[in-house]
Formats: sequence, structure tokens, C-alpha cells
Amino acid sequence: MASHRPSTLALATDLYELTMAASWLTLDVNARATFSLFVRRLPSTRSCLVFAGLEDAVDRLQALAFDEEAVDAIARTGSVAPEVARRLSGVRFTGDVWAMREGRVFFQDEPVLEVDAPMIEAQLIETTLLNAIHYPTLIASKSVRCVAAARGAAVVEFGLRRAPGIEAGSSAARASWLAGFSATSNVLASTALEIPPSGTVAHSFIEAFDSEREAFRAWAESTSGALTLLVDTYDTIRGVEHAIEVARELQDRGRRLDAIRLDSGDLDALSRAARAMLDRAGLRHVAIVASGGLDEDAIDALAGAGAPIDGFGVGTRVGMSADAPVLDMVYKLVAYDGRPRLKLSTTKETLVLPKQVYRRTDPGGRAAEDRIALRDEPPPGPGWEPLLEPVVRGGVAAPMPSLHEARTFCGSEVARFPPALFLPGERGAYRVSRSPELARAQELAVVACRARER
Amino acid sequence: MASHRPSTLALATDLYELTMAASWLTLDVNARATFSLFVRRLPSTRSCLVFAGLEDAVDRLQALAFDEEAVDAIARTGSVAPEVARRLSGVRFTGDVWAMREGRVFFQDEPVLEVDAPMIEAQLIETTLLNAIHYPTLIASKSVRCVAAARGAAVVEFGLRRAPGIEAGSSAARASWLAGFSATSNVLASTALEIPPSGTVAHSFIEAFDSEREAFRAWAESTSGALTLLVDTYDTIRGVEHAIEVARELQDRGRRLDAIRLDSGDLDALSRAARAMLDRAGLRHVAIVASGGLDEDAIDALAGAGAPIDGFGVGTRVGMSADAPVLDMVYKLVAYDGRPRLKLSTTKETLVLPKQVYRRTDPGGRAAEDRIALRDEPPPGPGWEPLLEPVVRGGVAAPMPSLHEARTFCGSEVARFPPALFLPGERGAYRVSRSPELARAQELAVVACRARER
Repeated sequence: MASHRPSTLALATDLYELTMAASWLTLDVNARATFSLFVRRLPSTRSCLVFAGLEDAVDRLQALAFDEEAVDAIARTGSVAPEVARRLSGVRFTGDVWAMREGRVFFQDEPVLEVDAPMIEAQLIETTLLNAIHYPTLIASKSVRCVAAARGAAVVEFGLRRAPGIEAGSSAARASWLAGFSATSNVLASTALEIPPSGTVAHSFIEAFDSEREAFRAWAESTSGALTLLVDTYDTIRGVEHAIEVARELQDRGRRLDAIRLDSGDLDALSRAARAMLDRAGLRHVAIVASGGLDEDAIDALAGAGAPIDGFGVGTRVGMSADAPVLDMVYKLVAYDGRPRLKLSTTKETLVLPKQVYRRTDPGGRAAEDRIALRDEPPPGPGWEPLLEPVVRGGVAAPMPSLHEARTFCGSEVARFPPALFLPGERGAYRVSRSPELARAQELAVVACRARER
Repeated sequence: MASHRPSTLALATDLYELTMAASWLTLDVNARATFSLFVRRLPSTRSCLVFAGLEDAVDRLQALAFDEEAVDAIARTGSVAPEVARRLSGVRFTGDVWAMREGRVFFQDEPVLEVDAPMIEAQLIETTLLNAIHYPTLIASKSVRCVAAARGAAVVEFGLRRAPGIEAGSSAARASWLAGFSATSNVLASTALEIPPSGTVAHSFIEAFDSEREAFRAWAESTSGALTLLVDTYDTIRGVEHAIEVARELQDRGRRLDAIRLDSGDLDALSRAARAMLDRAGLRHVAIVASGGLDEDAIDALAGAGAPIDGFGVGTRVGMSADAPVLDMVYKLVAYDGRPRLKLSTTKETLVLPKQVYRRTDPGGRAAEDRIALRDEPPPGPGWEPLLEPVVRGGVAAPMPSLHEARTFCGSEVARFPPALFLPGERGAYRVSRSPELARAQELAVVACRARER
């Protein structure tokens, strides 16, 4: 999404990807390799994850090239000889990529993406792929929980101010929109990605006037479009009274108040009190929006208790996935030169060979179970759907679904699973097995590897 | 640091910053305002924070301008009338900024930055400033703890692969280098910021060969410079044996093994075993580097127990500040048109008026206490140093310390405080008070505000 210079994309990698490429170029080792990208273990507060970031990953992979600036910079690290660095200028990604669709619900150990390519290319893109996929997947997986917890109320993304930079702000806005958010406050993301923009007004606006009433009047007078008043600057109940007063004045002039926003205090009690006051004043159409350090847990507590809140603004806690800020997402060699490869490091054993993930749908359309299989196995039976699709062939990307299509797909995908998988405080159980063929290949590979290294 | 198009910088903001600016332009409300940027409450696992991100913040503020592309995009949001959006094209930042130096240790409620400017400009930069400062401060504050926990061992930044994008990866590399890290694996950040690059070798390289020994030989043969062997792909103890074998072969040819890397398992036990094996083999000069999901807690446990580890590679858990991924960092109006401003929202009361933070140093050079005062107060006495310095005057930035100067400053700053402030599992106490003048002004402002809104 962000437009980067070619050398930025090429150099935004770990040094060892380049030294390994240099080494393989020197040794002339470059047979075909398969790497799997997967999450080793779900965070303790997640029953599943939502895949995102593929479009950016494929864009970056297509753009991979070492121009003169990149080659010079690599030589200057002192870790790659200049004549080897120059040979990198001929490297492009010419391989194949299999991946799940963005918006897909997935589970631990399931490859979400596999790369088949000459070793040098396949290895060179490791950092690039993880960097493009980890954060969007983290945020989509968190956001989908907020949407589930809101039980139909709108959830709006307010996270830019504490996002890890401009690029991350747009990336989070995209991932949360993909996961079902209704709008973003981020103007850049809104503009670039056609996400509905959303904004209210800050406390500083209210404070710049001599009284809250006066501020409300000034805001209404000087803006057009949807009108939201922020009522918690001084005293929330009084703020609601002032909003009602101003709403009545506006009604006389044919303009209406659309919403009030609560940003602090006991949001459950205040939203109920505000709703009752608005209703008594004949302002049933005025929505109540809540914000202030919210996440799916807070939304769940409010919406679950029936607090009359029509929209939730969420920011930092979603943009940093605060309860689970890290996914154990890795990109591992699983086959080289046609043979299975794996490491045996403690608790880090990887599933060998090119794989496929099959999902069985029950007759009611619900997802029933997943099976991780070898890629060339047929589906386990009727009703099983392969989740990994070819997205790049011989270095050329297939057309991708638009972001809006991906968002629709994510919604349909979430609807296929029990809500407990997404709701805070609940843990959904979902069966993921390995095919007998994969289990057998894995066992053989482990035995062979142990024997070889004895 | 990242080079952004002007419209990207202008649009990377929350919609309400623009609608408020539009409103003030329409109302012709634009007296001088002061905003304070501060952290309301420290995370429960932090005794202090380290300020970072100022250079980028000031760069962005200097670049603030609404070109035709930005104006068109703003008009297209539908929230700002086209003729008002056009008036934004004349807006530049012409105000003053006071800020702490990057690398400064600070505490909750202390303004790290204050802006004095016409209201429209001062408000417009809210999202920009927080976005530029929140993440680097978060990462510097986490990184400084890793450095303290390592007790003199090197700490190297490996976080790019799971960073929230390319920009965030560079931002984290910069912040952790500022806080005392020794190197980064991120080639882009290394190149752009002159941070020493660091890289070892991945498991996939080892696995591409028929045996670990063969892989070690190939790696040694095909690389120059510092040689590190990764020993945990199959069986760590056997991996160390293989490394010793290859080291001896290399010695015969005049090349030496510099380090081995442990990336899994019981790092304490394995590092001791490996150290003993290396020493017995006469390879005392071979360093041991540890990695794999490390953070300051893990480093503290290892280094505190005397595990013979010479360098720690840290990645994701630092890059997302996993134990404390969010700072309650805000930018609040504190004065408008010469008068104190504040909100009274529950638990969110702000300290009014332009302020200064004074720090008292004891005769031994140790920081003894801080006092938050009004900006025009004199220092409380001899030995008190003002921490907020003018960094932008009338829209023009003063020269900034280089990143390397900031890093040196951060090191000297950390040395002035008790180590308990930075070490995991300890809580340092440090006195921060408010000057009587500030306390009095605050009290008056609260009373006046309550009276006005009664």
C-alpha cells in the first residue's frame, strides 16, 4: 500500500538473508525449496486468527529487485563482498506462492502461505513476507473480536495517533476494515483504501470556548454533515443536558444532532442515563458513541450488558493488539531439492513438505474441521475445500480480490464458525488434524534426520 | 526518517483534526494555544520511560503543508466544504515547540513536549506528534531495560520480521540503538542511520545441506568477516561439537570461529555446557550469542544467574513492547488565549498552563527528584536543571543532536538513576512533585471551570 523506493524494499530485510544469498551464490547452491509460513502457537487469548497482509506481501515480492543503490549499500555492510553483492542485481522472484485468501479464519500449525522457488529467492523474501503479514494478521485477528463483541453496533478505528508510524496506521486501518470495522478516523487510509472516514470533535475544541454550550453551538454552526457532540469534557450528565438544549435549538432551524460521544467514566451507566435523557427529550434518533481505551473485552462487557451504545471507537489497544501483541509466526524450510527438511529444535519442530489445508463444511454450511495434508493429496472426501490457492505462478501474481471483496469474504468466513471462537472470555474448540500421509512423512523425516545427525 | 510525500504527511491524521481546523477557520477562532504532550500513567511494569521520536516529529511538523492533492482528498471526505479545504493550503506550522532531549528519562505527568502556536496549527499536529513519538518512546523505554538486564553483554535488535511494517522496523531499530543496543539486523536502518549491522545464519541454511557439519563448512567457506555458527538446528550439544570440529579445521587454515548462536531450549544450561566445551577445546575466544523470544525478563534471568552469554538477540517482544504495548500518551490543551484550560473528565484531569520540568541533581551527579512547574517560574534552587528546551521557534527548528549524540546522552542519563528503575522485577521510587505555583494555578482553574459549567 505504501509506495516505497526499490532500494527501500530490497534493504528492508535482515542482514542474514543477504549473507545467505551471497553464500549460496558463491557456492552455487540453488535447488528448489519450499517454505511454509505459519503460526506455531496461538496466543492464549485467541481461539483462531484471521489472515491479512497478502496483497502487500505479493506486491513487495513482485517489486523485489536490487538496484545500484541497494547493491552499494549491501557492499558497504562489509558482510557481502562487492562482487557478490553485484550478482544480487540479477535476482528477481520467479517462484510460486500458494496462500489462503485474506479474511480467512485459520488455526495454529496451518500454513497460511507456502513458497516454492529457487532457494536464494525463497530465502531472500523471508523477512519481507513476515513483515508484510504479521502485523495485519495480528490486527485483523484482534479486530474481528471487537466486531463480534459489539453484537451489531458499529466499531470505528481511531488508532492512528498511537500506531507505530504512518505506514502501520494505514495497515491497521486496512486490517480492521477487512475484519468488519465500519469506518476509520485515518484520512490517509480512508482516501487510499476507500474506507468510510469518521470523526467527531476533541475536548480541546470544547475547551477553547468559554462554556460547553457555546462550544456545542459553534461546532454545530461551523460544520456540515453528521453532527456529533462530545459531552464528557466537564461533567457528562450536564454535557448531555447541553447537547439536548443545542439539539432543540438546531431542530428549530431544521438541522439535527446525530450523535453524542462519551469518552470517559462509567460508560454503561452514563450511556443508559444519556439514552433515557435523549429519549425523554424526543431525541430517539440521536446515537450514542463510546470511546476511551476500549478493546473487545470492554465492548463485550458493555454490549453484553445491553448498554445502549450504537458505536464504539477503538484505538491504541486494538492497534497494538494489547492483550496479545505478538504472533509466533514463522517462515520455515520444509523441503529442499524435493526432500523433506525440518529442524528438531526444542518445541520448534516444523511440518515437512509442501502442504495443503483442507476444511470440511457441514451440510448447514458451518465449518466443521480442518486437516493439514500434503499438497499433492486429494481432498479427504466430499465437502472438503482446499484453503491454499496459487496466488503467484512463475513470479507472476494472479489478480487478487479487492479489499472490499476480502471484507465481505471475512464476514462470511466468520459466520461459518461458532461465535465462541471470537468472543472474549470464551474459548471455542475446533478440530485441526494432520492427514495420515503427512503424519507418516513427518515421522519418517524425523527418524531420517535423527539418524543422519547421530 | 522515512521520506513521505507531502500529501501523505498532511493526510496521515485523524479526520477530526481537519474538521476542527475547518471549523476554526470558518469561525475565525485562532488565538494562541498551548498543548502539553505527556504520559498520564506509567504502565504497571515501568518505573520510568525514555523519550524518543522527537527528530521525526519535528521533521514532520516542518513539512506540514496541504498541497493540491491533500486539499482535494480532504474535500472528498465530505466532512469539509471544498472552499474551506482550500483555505488549509495556506496553513504552515509557525509556532514554538519546547521538548525534552531524545534519550531523556522521564516520568508520568511530566510534559515531554509543549507546543505554543495559533490554535489551528497547534491542534492540526496532534495526531502527527503522537504518531511520531508514541512508538519510539515505547520501544526506547523497553530497550533500555534489555540493556540494563544484560549487565554489559551486547544486545542486538532482530525485530524487523515481525515489526508493524518497514517504517516501524526502522523506527524500532533507531529507538533501541538510541537506548543502548549494539547493532541491528535491519539493513535499511543500519544503512540509513549508521547503526552497526549484525547477522548470523538461519536454520534453513543448515537444513539445505545433508549434514550439519557440511553446512558449517560451507558457511565458513563462503563468507568472510565475523563467523557465527547456529548450533541448535538438530541437537544443540552435538551442534557445539560440530562447531568445535569445524573451528579446528578453520584454525589450521588461519581462519577463526567468532561465535556460536543458541536459539532454543534451556539457554542457561546450554550456554554453560557450550562454554565448557569451547573452553576445553581451547576456544575461549568464541562468543556465545543467545536468541529466541527474548525480552528483558529472560535476559535478566540469564545474565542475573551468570549464564556465560556474550550477546543477546531480541526481536518481536521488544519491537511490540509485549509486556506493555501501549503508553497512555496524550496531547492536551492547557492554555488558550492566555488562560488555563483543562478537562475534568473522570481520571483524565490535565495540568494547566505552559509548564517546565526541573530536575535536581545531587552533588554526586545522581538525579534526585523532579518538579513540574509553570514555565515562567525560576528554577526551584541551585542544582535544578530545566528539561524542556526550545526546539522550534516561530516554525523554525533548531539543530538537533545527532542520533549518536542522543545515544551517548541516553547512556549518561540512565547512569544518573538507580538501576532499579530499569531492571525487571524491581520498582524504583523517584520523587516527582508539582511546584506550589502550579498546584495553586491548577486548583484555581478547576474551581473556575466548575463554577463556569455549573
